[in-house]
Amino acid sequence: MPIRKAEAEWKGNLVEGAGRLKVGSGAFEGPYSFKSRLEEGQSATNPEELIGAAHAGCFTMALTAQLSQKGITPNRIYTTAGVKLDKIGDAFAITRIELQTEAEISSMTRHSRRLRLMRSKTVPCRKL
Amino acid sequence: MPIRKAEAEWKGNLVEGAGRLKVGSGAFEGPYSFKSRLEEGQSATNPEELIGAAHAGCFTMALTAQLSQKGITPNRIYTTAGVKLDKIGDAFAITRIELQTEAEISSMTRHSRRLRLMRSKTVPCRKL
Repeated sequence: MPIRKAEAEWKGNLVEGAGRLKVGSGAFEGPYSFKSRLEEGQSATNPEELIGAAHAGCFTMALTAQLSQKGITPNRIYTTAGVKLDKIGDAFAITRIELQTEAEISSMTRHSRRLRLMRSKTVPCRKL
Repeated sequence: MPIRKAEAEWKGNLVEGAGRLKVGSGAFEGPYSFKSRLEEGQSATNPEELIGAAHAGCFTMALTAQLSQKGITPNRIYTTAGVKLDKIGDAFAITRIELQTEAEISSMTRHSRRLRLMRSKTVPCRKL
């Protein structure tokens, strides 16, 4: 299996300085900062939303894989992630990631119960 | 603390279908696929490199925070992440994330030993 690469760079102190994140494929490179990490309404990224995208993406692909193994082709699977960052003592930790999945699949009567169970999957996380 | 959002969408079966990932800030939106997940040399992203960017970014910012608390402003901190995905039984798991950090900091004599210890930090991961 390939080892996936990514990198981070920071210049300056915590509050006034700024960072950049880059993934190995080249698909994404962009800034992040103290402000984009902790405040709402920022256009720069933060580590938590990248983990959210990874988690939603992995779950969506895993669900597709399970369906494909049974010969079922989904029209569309759509998953949202909500990543909760909390201050615990002097440090920060992701305490919860909530995934919500909707699946549009033709002729799903036989499998509908199982999918409903997966629709509101909630994934508690260990402290990072 | 804000709850960070992200989303994933998949259309079609596992091998021939394709997905998209998007982060809540709007800083990144792009495709991912079975091929970009498991093969080398792909221009599309995969969940593992997003986790790598998040991990490298978080560690770099945390190191900056510790330095800033001591009144030390780094010129540049640079961290690379290597994320190892392995097949374990019928499933896949991230078995290791390796972070390598270099720091350029003026007048670091007093703190150099501590930083050297952090430079080759290796972070074993639990099965996701």
